[in-house]
Formats: sequence, structure tokens, C-alpha cells
Amino acid sequence: MTDTLIDRRDLSFQLYEVLDVEVLAERERFADHSRDTFDAVIETADKIARETFANHNRAADQDEPRFVDGKVAMLPQVKQAFDAYARAGFIAGRYDYELGGMQLPETVMAACNGFFTAANPGTAGYPFLTTAAANLIRVFGSESQKSLFLPPMLSGQYAGTMALTEPHAGSSLADIRTSATPDSAGHYLIKGAKIYISGGEQNITENIVHMVLAKIKGAPAGVKGISLFIVPKLRLSETGGLGERNGVALAGLIHKLGYRGTTSAALSFGDDAECHGYLVGEPHQGLKYMFQMMNEARVGVGCGAAVIGYRGYMHSLAYAKDRLQGRRAADNNPQSEQVPIIEHADVRRMLLAQKAYSEGGLALCLYGARLMDDQNTHPELQKRQDAGQLLDLLTPVIKAWPSEYGPKANDLAIQVYGGAGYTREYPVEQCWRDNRLNPIHEGTNGIQALDLLGRKVWQNQSNGLQLLLDAMQADLQAATSARCEPWALSLSETLQQAVKVTQSLGQTLMAGETEQALANASCYLHLFGHICVAWMWLRQANAAARGLSDASNDRERCFYEGKLQATQYFFHWELPSVAQDLVLLRNMDDTCLVMKAEWF
Amino acid sequence: MTDTLIDRRDLSFQLYEVLDVEVLAERERFADHSRDTFDAVIETADKIARETFANHNRAADQDEPRFVDGKVAMLPQVKQAFDAYARAGFIAGRYDYELGGMQLPETVMAACNGFFTAANPGTAGYPFLTTAAANLIRVFGSESQKSLFLPPMLSGQYAGTMALTEPHAGSSLADIRTSATPDSAGHYLIKGAKIYISGGEQNITENIVHMVLAKIKGAPAGVKGISLFIVPKLRLSETGGLGERNGVALAGLIHKLGYRGTTSAALSFGDDAECHGYLVGEPHQGLKYMFQMMNEARVGVGCGAAVIGYRGYMHSLAYAKDRLQGRRAADNNPQSEQVPIIEHADVRRMLLAQKAYSEGGLALCLYGARLMDDQNTHPELQKRQDAGQLLDLLTPVIKAWPSEYGPKANDLAIQVYGGAGYTREYPVEQCWRDNRLNPIHEGTNGIQALDLLGRKVWQNQSNGLQLLLDAMQADLQAATSARCEPWALSLSETLQQAVKVTQSLGQTLMAGETEQALANASCYLHLFGHICVAWMWLRQANAAARGLSDASNDRERCFYEGKLQATQYFFHWELPSVAQDLVLLRNMDDTCLVMKAEWF
Repeated sequence: MTDTLIDRRDLSFQLYEVLDVEVLAERERFADHSRDTFDAVIETADKIARETFANHNRAADQDEPRFVDGKVAMLPQVKQAFDAYARAGFIAGRYDYELGGMQLPETVMAACNGFFTAANPGTAGYPFLTTAAANLIRVFGSESQKSLFLPPMLSGQYAGTMALTEPHAGSSLADIRTSATPDSAGHYLIKGAKIYISGGEQNITENIVHMVLAKIKGAPAGVKGISLFIVPKLRLSETGGLGERNGVALAGLIHKLGYRGTTSAALSFGDDAECHGYLVGEPHQGLKYMFQMMNEARVGVGCGAAVIGYRGYMHSLAYAKDRLQGRRAADNNPQSEQVPIIEHADVRRMLLAQKAYSEGGLALCLYGARLMDDQNTHPELQKRQDAGQLLDLLTPVIKAWPSEYGPKANDLAIQVYGGAGYTREYPVEQCWRDNRLNPIHEGTNGIQALDLLGRKVWQNQSNGLQLLLDAMQADLQAATSARCEPWALSLSETLQQAVKVTQSLGQTLMAGETEQALANASCYLHLFGHICVAWMWLRQANAAARGLSDASNDRERCFYEGKLQATQYFFHWELPSVAQDLVLLRNMDDTCLVMKAEWF
Repeated sequence: MTDTLIDRRDLSFQLYEVLDVEVLAERERFADHSRDTFDAVIETADKIARETFANHNRAADQDEPRFVDGKVAMLPQVKQAFDAYARAGFIAGRYDYELGGMQLPETVMAACNGFFTAANPGTAGYPFLTTAAANLIRVFGSESQKSLFLPPMLSGQYAGTMALTEPHAGSSLADIRTSATPDSAGHYLIKGAKIYISGGEQNITENIVHMVLAKIKGAPAGVKGISLFIVPKLRLSETGGLGERNGVALAGLIHKLGYRGTTSAALSFGDDAECHGYLVGEPHQGLKYMFQMMNEARVGVGCGAAVIGYRGYMHSLAYAKDRLQGRRAADNNPQSEQVPIIEHADVRRMLLAQKAYSEGGLALCLYGARLMDDQNTHPELQKRQDAGQLLDLLTPVIKAWPSEYGPKANDLAIQVYGGAGYTREYPVEQCWRDNRLNPIHEGTNGIQALDLLGRKVWQNQSNGLQLLLDAMQADLQAATSARCEPWALSLSETLQQAVKVTQSLGQTLMAGETEQALANASCYLHLFGHICVAWMWLRQANAAARGLSDASNDRERCFYEGKLQATQYFFHWELPSVAQDLVLLRNMDDTCLVMKAEWF
């Protein structure tokens, strides 16, 4: 067990040596900031996460929220952590000063939030959802909605949720049935049932603001008839005081295998009392609005998955250096001392894989956050647009890759611990369980694959894809050191094949053979993801090669050697796995398409 | 949720159409048996498993054994299930009639036990451990030990355990410290501590027989100084009556993430009272004896992992046929009805993968059990020896492959369920947790890899390997149908490359470069395992092609088409993944070997 949530040296490397986050301080929005203020905020996040989040991570897993007399009973430490997060200003961290925010870059906020998830994903859920809900109101809400709801949400007085899923409509939001009927008083009456609502009930905040998708009576069928509503648990008076209870009732709690500290609620709206909802923006535009939030949430899921993977890596690394067991393969003397298991090549393999997955995943997520910053604050309009389009393309990858490989890292962490790993006396099994939600929530990775291959690659005449290729090209050309050059060559070759297969899938889609083209979308997502992460490792290796030549002490040299060796691991052990994807995609393999339900 | 534990049609196919188990009835030992009696026993196992094991699978997971006042409190249904298993004669299922057994083939017993693990792995642990402990006494015990301990163990009056692991000695049994001092009364005094002892304490049986590894004072260091002892919880009088409590104390329970119904105990021996142990066989031969049991246990772990994978597949298949969500990729009409999710190609991919892993894993395990039958009962001595050597070679593969891919199947089962999958309201998350023990216990898969590449491949002048190649060759030649031929070609090519790389690794080992040769042993195990399972699928495809041409109705045709399509899945989607293993092994990739502890 270790205290380290995310290695601070690695984070500095990623932020300053790879992503050049310092230059953000030159932009007007971040003019008050500097590397020092960024580091101070990160230090605060690390400290609060260790002291008030990590302290009850296991307790909240074992003693999960309970449904008692229509209410939720939960550990008091969750509220203490939520309040500490809010008090430090993190809910409004990205926001304008005038809203009480700190005007922090997305990249820095993503790093900060990484500590909280690494420390305690279940408790971190509550403030993160609040930020996401507040952001919807900030962007799409009316002035009066903003003034009523934002201040108490950003201060942590109220929390927020996202209420999308219904029992019969999960991935297929087009099929939701929750209805909204205009009332003469100007609001809508909401009626329906939602399920799997994270933070849908709790005893942390005095009010909960649900962002609810519903259909206004008479709306068009499908996704074009969905609207977005603010539905508070307690109604507000016009001056913002807490009023009477709104008709949102807790129908039950769902019991998850991970993130057990975050309640997952079944909610009923308008069942036993009138449920007032306040339309956000225009009618029938709800899904579009929600997708802005969802895209941020998807990047958030990727970050969470990466850092939970990272946390398990930190634990198992500490364990592997400490635990004595066996002897080196070439040592046949039973009298010699047992060695730390990190001396066994197979244990190093499992640690290297975890390093490759978690640091590589984190690099991808931070890159995504960095694109958000460019999208929001780059001085040039064109660059802002470009960053937005590139981010849009990468969003399904940022969601899916870390959520596939973060759990793999956690699986390996268990394996490093051996028999101890599968016991609840040790910390890594919880990481593994917590991380198992990430390939599913906010859109399953199968949905991400369809989004990538069915939509994102072709959007804006594939401008996002072209921007990606250009960005990769720059890093390939920068790979001039002796160690990096062969990796660049290997990535470049894979990339060429991927572009070719993309073109051929595009032609199939153009020809209207949608099912054929999309049948192996998951392979495409894997191919795309692995290429992106290989690129992330190449970028790190380029920076490490520079760092190594300037390194002033052994510790620094070891750090950079580790980065280079992990890059080698990724290029030798991971990237080659896409060969199989390329073959399946090139052949438009029809194994799954042809299989009939009755053959199973 | 489905009642089906293992598909009975598939099991019949594997036993009778692939493994030709009926011919066993022609052997003297099984002369009273026939396909009818085999099927009757299987039917009994399926029924008891569904009625008395599956009924409390979730309850025993949620309400796990508790440590109360030095004793274990657990659900009463566990005892009911254990007793039903014993009453039906399964503990002694393989044994001679004169010992109260049924003289059943190993293959049939493996099939039967599959139902119990699929139904409830935690409860199944108790009788399985009892069989394993009894078997050690049957083979290596003295006549008086046999007559004292076997009858009550085989009847289910006593249970058994395997007490190997100590806090500082898990994988490295050479380092155990538990001591045995001869007493004037003829027994030994045992002193020490054991940990992770499955079934180490329970409230099911009136006595527990621990099979304990310990070192007799003055024994040689390392594995050559380990002896095996019978250590009962209650001592026996000379006539076999239960005597006073022996000095074995429950020091605590360990809390696992899966198999929660099976207690995992820390035991102390000779701490507060004298602990009598009875030497089994010769001094210092304990590890050799234990390894006989361990080899059976490793095949057992493989079987368990395969059927837990299978169980999750059955659940998710039923769910995918039932759950409506979304529309076909080519359908843009939001008014059309939602389709069962099995209509989505990506869901079929996840079901096909599960089918490939669980049915393929089961095929491998049943093949192993069938080898045991040949080893024990083949009329020709040479064939008995051959079967033993082939089984010896395959044991690490039978342990490791299903325990890697069974959990992968369970992971996909969760993914098929979507959000429901990660909740404890649905059954598949428990399968996934339960299965997570299998890559670790009875020797981690890393240890299996070293056993395979470091020992098994070279034993007896590689006779086992030659037997394997001959057996594969026969099935490759039998693959004459149009659909099977290309698969045979693909397997044959992979096999040639694997043989080549094996030879080159052998030369490296011969040259004394042990660490270099074994550094990527896990790749070798993966390569070897995938080739074996591809072979298992080819064997099934050969049988299915025959079956298809004789099939008399649609249901049968669908069954065989499913087998052929799953074979195609394995050859298109799985076997190609070994290309990467081949490259790493061929290059003797040193990425993990070179990585230094201080670079992490």
C-alpha cells in the first residue's frame, strides 16, 4: 500500500515537458497564472485527495450507501470530502473569476481531478457530477436559471446529476418516455422514471439539481424530440430560497460492483407529487445540449479509468519492491535469500504493462484536456476551431482506450500481488472493481466504436482526421534520437496502413453498406486507440531523450530511462497487436455479422 | 438470468462426438458403465447443482462466512449442498467400488463437477478439496491412515484441506518454515502458521483433515526437505472415533473478492496446544506427493475457470436474446421497434468470443481429463505412459489458458449486459469476481509459464511435445471438409513456427542462458495455449462438419453451424494474436529483462 496517488514527477513531466502547459499562462485568460500557481493548485489537490478522500475509500466501498425509510444513509466522511473539494474552489475551478472560479486551464483541472479519482472514485463522483450539471446550466441556461442555480452549485451547497437513462432506454436515448407537459405557471410537469442516476440521492447537500431528458408532448419521434430540463429536488423561491419538495422520489438504490460510494438511484418523477421542470434552452434541443456535457463526461471517464489504473500500478509497484519471494531464474541455491519480486522478469513485465497503460492513458487524457484549452483560449480562431475538431474526433478514443486498458492495468496489479491481490485486505482488487464501470458508463465502448467509425472520422470532410495526422507527423519528424527513430518508423508504417483501411471502410460506407462497414467497429477503435497511445509514448520518448541528455543526477536519469523503456515496451509488446485489427478490417471480416442468433 | 449451467447438448457433443467417451465403457474398470449411466450421473449432477448449489450462490457471496468467537458462522445451505453432493456419491465418484466409489471415468467426473462450479464455485470448493485431500491419503497414505481417514472423508463426514502456503512462502514453497518434530508416541508435533487455507475452517463437517507441508527438524534446505502430514482438527481414537481437539487454531479469516463462500483461513499449528501430525509416506517426499495432487488441482482450476466463463456466457446469451435496445445499424427510422441486442454485430462479437473461450476452454479441460482416463485405464502400457506424459506437458496450459480466457469471457458478459452488468442485481459480475482467483491460485499463471517452458517441454527428451504434435497432426489430416481445411492449414503453419521458436529457446537454455530464455515465458504460454485451443476448435469443427452432414433437423443444424462459426471466430479473431508472441520469442525480446527496478 502506498500513499502515492499519481507520481508527481511523472505529472510534471507530462504537463511541462510534453504538453508545454506553461505557455498557457501567456494567454489572457490565464494571465494571473504561472507554473507556480498551477503547481500550487496541484499540490492542494494532491493533499486534499490524500487526506480527505483516500482516508475513507475502502470504508465507503464496504459500507455503501443504504436505502432507509425512503432516504439514503451514507458515511459522514463523504460529505467532509465533498465540502473540502468545494471549499478549495475545485467545483468552479475552470470558471470565470466573476462566477467565483479560478480560471484554471482544463489541463490543470484534469490533473487535479486525477488525484481525487485515484484516491476515491466513489466520493469523487459527487463533485464531478455537480461540475458537469452546472456546466450545462452555464452554457445553455437562461440568465435567471444561471443566477438561481449556479452560485449554490459552484459553492457545493447543491449537487447536480445527469438523468438520462430509463429502464428500457440506455444506449438508445431516442426511446426515452419521460414526458414534460407545459403548465400554465410557465414550468413543465415532468412524469416518468429514470434509472442508474449517479448521485441521484445523497445526504451531502441540501438540494440536488437533476438535469433531466424528457419529451414534450407532441414532440417528434427519436432523438429530435428530446428536451432538457432542470428538475431540483427542492423547489426554489424566486429569490433562491429553498422551497417545498418537488415530485422527485427515490424508488430504490442499485448496488454496483464498484464505485460503491456513489449512489446509483432509480428515481420517479411526478409519481406521488407534481414534479416541476424548467426547460433549458430551446425545446427539442436537449440531446444536443446533453452531448456537450457528455463529451466532457467521456473525457472524464477516460481520465478516471487512467488514474484508477495508475493507482493500482503505484500500489503494485510498491508491493513488488517490498515483497520477497523466490530467487532469480538462474539461481539454484535454496539457501540464498529470497529476492524482491520486482527482480523476476515476469513481474517487471506486469509492471511495465501497467506503466504503459496508465501513464500512456493519462497522457492521452491530458492531451485531450490540452485541446480543450486550445479550443477555449487559443489566440487564433483557426487553431481554436481545429482543436475543437481534433478533440471531437479523439473523444471516443479518450473515453474508450483508458477504460479498456486501465482495467487491464488493475488486473495485472492483482496478479503482481498474487494471492494477496484478490483479497480485500489489500487495495488493488477495489481498483479493479471500480474501474469495471468505465468501459460501460457514459456510452459503452461498443457505442464509442460506432461513434468513431460511423461519424467522427468523416465529420467536417475528415478535417479532424487530417489534423490528427498532421500532429502525429510533427512528432514523428521530431523523433531524431537513436532510440526514438525506430519507433517513429514503426508508428509511421502502422499509420499508413490504418489510413488505407480507413479509406476503404469509407468507400464501403459511401456505398451504403453500413452494416458491413461497421460490423468490426470495435477493431477499428482498438487500432485507432493503440496508434494514438503509441504516439503519446513517442511524444514522451522524444521529451525523455531530451531530458536524459540534460539530466543532472541519477534520479533524473532513472526517470527518463524508465520512460524510454516503457516506450519500448509499448512498441514491442503492444503496437504489434493491431496487425490483427488491420487484417480483419481489410477483409471486412463477416464472422460476427453472419452468425445467427439461433446458432448460439 | 438463466437456469442453464452448461449447455447439455454441447456437453454431449464434447463427450461423445469429440472425445468418444463411450469407448471407455469397453474397458474393464468401466465395464458396468455405458453412455446411459454416464448420462444419468451427469443428469444427477446438473439437477443437484441447480437445486442445492445455485440456490444460494448469490446469498453465500453476499453473506460470506464470518469469524465469531474463534469459530466460523456460515449459511446453512452450504452444508445442505455439501451433504447432497456427498450423498449422491460424488466425493468418491472416481473411486473403486470397494471404497464406496462409482468407478466413474475422470472425464465424466470433470463434466459433473463442472455443473457444481458453474452453479456455485464457493460452495463447490468444500467437496472438491475433500476429494483432493482424500486422494493424497489414498495414494500415499499407510493402510491404517487409509482405513482411519478415507471412509469418513469419502462419505462427507469429514472434509479435507491443502495447507501449503505460509505468509512469507506462497509461490516459493521451498521457503516454508512450519516444523515437525518427532514425538515418542510415533507422531510428529507440528508448529507453524499457514495462510490462505481454503476451507481451513467451516461448520459443515464434524472434522477437518488438513494435509500439511512441514519440515522435519534437520531436513535438507529447499524443496527437498519438505514432508507431508495429516493434521486433523480433532484427533481420532485408534478405532476411528472422534477424540480431543488437536492444536490447530483459526487465527483469522481472509476476505476475498470472489469465491466468497469458501472460507480462506489463517491457521496456527501448535500454538496454544500440541498439534499432532501423521507423516504420509516417506520423510522429505512431501512436495513430490503434493505435486500429484497439485497437478490434479491445476486441471481442476482450469475446469472451474472454463465453466465460470461458461456460466456467464449462458447468462449474457439469454439476456442478449431478451433485452430490446436500439435498431440495426442500417435502420434510421426512429419509429421502428427496438431489436433484441443480439441483433447488433458487436454484441454477437462479444457472445462469439465468450463461446470461443468457454466452450474451447471446456474442451481443453475435458481433453485433459480424458488423458487421465487413458493414463489410468488404457489397455496398453505404452498408451498409458504416453497419456501421462502428454497430460504432464499440458497441465500448465490447462490451468492457465481457461483461467486467462474464462475471466475474459466474464468481462464480456458484463459488457453485454451494459449498465446492468456491473450491478449486483444481475448475476454476471459475481462470475467475473469469482473467476479472478483462478489465474492465481494453485500456482500463478506466471509460474505455469515457467513450468511449461522451463521444464515440461523438455521432460523425457520432449516426448510429451512429440506426442502432442502427433495428436495434432492426426486432427489436421482429418480436416478434409471444405470449411475445416483452411483452418487446418492456418494451424499447421502456426505450429511450424512455434516448433521452430521452441527449438531456438531450447538451445538458449542448453547454453545456460536461463534468464534470457525464460524472460518471456508468459508469451510462450500464450502461444502454446492458443495453439492448443485452436486445435480443440478444429477437433470440434471436424466433428461438427460430420454432424452437419447427418443432421436430421433444424435445431441440430443450428447447433453445428454455431460450432463451425465459433471455430471461424477463433481462427480469424484469436489465433492471429500469437504472431506477436512469435516475434517477441524469436527476438528474445529483452525489454522486461533490461528494465531496472529503479527506473520504475
